[in-house]
Amino acid sequence: MTNGAQLLVQTLLKSGIDVCFGNPGTSEMHFVAALDSIDGMRCILKLFEGGVTGAADGYYRMSGRPAATLLHLGPGFANGWANLHNGRKAHTGVINIVGDHASHHAQYDAPLTADIDGVIRSVSQITRRTTPQTLVADTQAIITAAQAGQTATLILPADTAWQSVSTENTAIPDPVAPVRTLPSLADLDAAAQLLTQPGAAIMLGNRALHAEALTIAGQIAHKTGCHLFADFFNARMARGRGRVQPIHLTYSTAINQTLLQDVRHLLLVGAGQPVAFFGYPGQPSLPTPAACHIVPFAAPTADLLGALTQLAHHIGATDPAPIPVYAAPTLPTGETLSAATISQAVAALLPENSIVVDEAIALWQHLNPATVAAAPHDWLAITGGAIGHALPCAVGAAVAAPGRPILALEGDGSAMYTIQSLWTMAREKLDVTVVILSNRGYQVLFSELKKMGIDTPGPTATRLLEMSDPAIDWGGIAAGFGVPFGRATTLPAFIDLLQQGFATPTPLLIEAVI
Amino acid sequence: MTNGAQLLVQTLLKSGIDVCFGNPGTSEMHFVAALDSIDGMRCILKLFEGGVTGAADGYYRMSGRPAATLLHLGPGFANGWANLHNGRKAHTGVINIVGDHASHHAQYDAPLTADIDGVIRSVSQITRRTTPQTLVADTQAIITAAQAGQTATLILPADTAWQSVSTENTAIPDPVAPVRTLPSLADLDAAAQLLTQPGAAIMLGNRALHAEALTIAGQIAHKTGCHLFADFFNARMARGRGRVQPIHLTYSTAINQTLLQDVRHLLLVGAGQPVAFFGYPGQPSLPTPAACHIVPFAAPTADLLGALTQLAHHIGATDPAPIPVYAAPTLPTGETLSAATISQAVAALLPENSIVVDEAIALWQHLNPATVAAAPHDWLAITGGAIGHALPCAVGAAVAAPGRPILALEGDGSAMYTIQSLWTMAREKLDVTVVILSNRGYQVLFSELKKMGIDTPGPTATRLLEMSDPAIDWGGIAAGFGVPFGRATTLPAFIDLLQQGFATPTPLLIEAVI
Repeated sequence: MTNGAQLLVQTLLKSGIDVCFGNPGTSEMHFVAALDSIDGMRCILKLFEGGVTGAADGYYRMSGRPAATLLHLGPGFANGWANLHNGRKAHTGVINIVGDHASHHAQYDAPLTADIDGVIRSVSQITRRTTPQTLVADTQAIITAAQAGQTATLILPADTAWQSVSTENTAIPDPVAPVRTLPSLADLDAAAQLLTQPGAAIMLGNRALHAEALTIAGQIAHKTGCHLFADFFNARMARGRGRVQPIHLTYSTAINQTLLQDVRHLLLVGAGQPVAFFGYPGQPSLPTPAACHIVPFAAPTADLLGALTQLAHHIGATDPAPIPVYAAPTLPTGETLSAATISQAVAALLPENSIVVDEAIALWQHLNPATVAAAPHDWLAITGGAIGHALPCAVGAAVAAPGRPILALEGDGSAMYTIQSLWTMAREKLDVTVVILSNRGYQVLFSELKKMGIDTPGPTATRLLEMSDPAIDWGGIAAGFGVPFGRATTLPAFIDLLQQGFATPTPLLIEAVI
Repeated sequence: MTNGAQLLVQTLLKSGIDVCFGNPGTSEMHFVAALDSIDGMRCILKLFEGGVTGAADGYYRMSGRPAATLLHLGPGFANGWANLHNGRKAHTGVINIVGDHASHHAQYDAPLTADIDGVIRSVSQITRRTTPQTLVADTQAIITAAQAGQTATLILPADTAWQSVSTENTAIPDPVAPVRTLPSLADLDAAAQLLTQPGAAIMLGNRALHAEALTIAGQIAHKTGCHLFADFFNARMARGRGRVQPIHLTYSTAINQTLLQDVRHLLLVGAGQPVAFFGYPGQPSLPTPAACHIVPFAAPTADLLGALTQLAHHIGATDPAPIPVYAAPTLPTGETLSAATISQAVAALLPENSIVVDEAIALWQHLNPATVAAAPHDWLAITGGAIGHALPCAVGAAVAAPGRPILALEGDGSAMYTIQSLWTMAREKLDVTVVILSNRGYQVLFSELKKMGIDTPGPTATRLLEMSDPAIDWGGIAAGFGVPFGRATTLPAFIDLLQQGFATPTPLLIEAVI
């Protein structure tokens, strides 16, 4: 006899879902036993659920396939909420398997009883609470939604997992691939007409920023003269020498207003309309000019490569865009380690085909322009702004893309949120070089106080924003989790360590003291 | 002019809310500035929101007063969800201040925009989204609910924080103390009648387990011959030599069934009905006999000391209960460090008036009986079963109860969830001795597999449940966060370290290798 947990594992495997990041508890033990008894699922333990969901996000961004997560009731799901939020904003498909109490036990207010449906629905886009009778259909619906780019969740009551499933409910139909929409002829006509207007531009997002789609977007821009834009934070953006490079918006709304000032028609291809990260007193929420006409063309989860290909064909855009010839960046010189010299060093040393997972706020101003001419690479950003993303995301990206070096750029404050991911890097021997920008505090928040006119914060604000008393001993943290460590206070030391990180296929933690 | 943030700080202070645990972000910077410009609030930075909410829980349990938490939008709240859940199950009052986007910015799908109301409502018992016009009334409603033992949340949009409040809205009425209910005369009559029945017992919970209430419960038991019970996990339980000791239920439903087998009438005083932690195939959810009559007498948030006092008066129970005379536990001997010898050493060395924060599953079987005769102490348990509780709870307890030594007992798996709390212990120089039961895995889950008949798990299950590859280097972790460290592999070494931890008023991390 097959129990529900075994049937669930079989259903996942039949759809090619073969990676599971997890942190199980008592209510998930039948699922763990099923994973143990059926071959085919790679299971990766994370020591905290924020790492579980962040890894699933990085895995999808690099493989295009959803991973399963294994989470323990309401608290386990809630611990993973923030990186599910980041993933949702990246249109990451993920299959959350959340254990719950046995149905007969749910009526009692046991310690772990909570509003599990409520916390799940606050971030999950499709949720099914399954039963032995509906398990296959529920699971396949969840899988299809995840494959289409949704945050999808299966609540698995413990008794559904342990009960035998009667044979009429164990047949697993062939999986149905999700349908990604394509533009209609009317959409293509309208887009073609729009792109001939003065001030026409295309805002690219999601898979429209993958390498092949960018090439086609370049053809369209070359044919029509329209500008290409990309938002500041993207799920995955192909960058570097030899690639079509859209105008990359920044964190600053004022700068974005300047970049977008001449745009009158903005065609959205996989992107939302650009919007300020936060609202400020008397400042606009939108960086686009008031006269700008925003035209949705392809939704973020549409077939974006197909949409761009059809559009290019529709307007006869067959010639490749001329790509500026950039000289390879050179290594910076001198002794001073700063955001600028770190960014230059990264640009010069980044290996071809590497993956950058970026959450280092202290670098943004310098790093984006510095890496335009770096070797071709993919760039994964913190799309939902929920900090604690880069380390888990790097884990998932490394699992999805073996053989590609990963550079995780992290602030010290953000790193603390999901620092347990270092352990999984060590255990799985992942090729991740982690650079911690060690400025001993939430320096971005001191800048926010400055914007408010507070140049010299008092002791209470200072104590809430700085981390120097005591300073984190990053060597201790790295040793704690089994990751080799180096500390750089000078530029040459940083360059040495970064070269060492890229040269070895296992993790290294570099503290860059700035 | 007063802005909303300043008015909020003034309203909190007027109600005596003067401790704030937080991890702020951009949307909370006007609140941070207000805290900086108005004297009176002690602000304590935690490096992760799970630590923020867990500290607020520990603070309430020991002080009886709610702390404020400062959380950054949906993700910040979600990161704190698990320990809010633990706190909710302990009837901990907490005032969550959650920043949100400025109202005019909420319509755009900015990166940090999420279903913040949904995630909050899934654990918060009262929630207000405030405005400059309603800020004082909203805040006072939240405070009153928190003082009565509720999880209460104020959503503070950034523009409410930064806007000037017109003078008709800045008056802060005198705070209204929450009303904790007392039993009616009919309740007292019914309880008095019930306690004369054969098989009568009282289940004590929440403040009915504080020292003074226990004494009165002892008088009632002495007068009527009823038994006193306490559930396994309690918010705070006064224990040790010289105290009335209710029969303490265990984690095992089978043992609890035996302990409760003769109970026919169970009066609930601040407790819920006892229930199994998890449901298992073919096992009961309730440990009480089918014939047991469960009678609610006083709700967990009622005036439990008042209720017990009135009941004692009503039945003329004025004589103190005879307390068994226990000899002080003696130190164990030999070399072997085990759950049993660690428990004996803790029992022998626990200082008078200390506070134990317990999340060490590996010890439960031994520790509870061993400490019955320890010096008088308070015991705080993980009421909601969401792991990652003990370290943050110890921070809050230490802030609430300066001068009282704290012993935090943690499993290695659980410790990893909110390990960042070590840093706040170092920064605030808190008198916390942390003992990590280092068994390199989630050993309780191997026991669960055994219950399912799996004595020898395969490689997949093993890899999901054990943490030995690599083993956490606890010395590195402690150094990383600035906490002194000692490692014990033998009993004498453990005893030395524990004595050292209790002798110094600052934190010490002890790894007990078992």
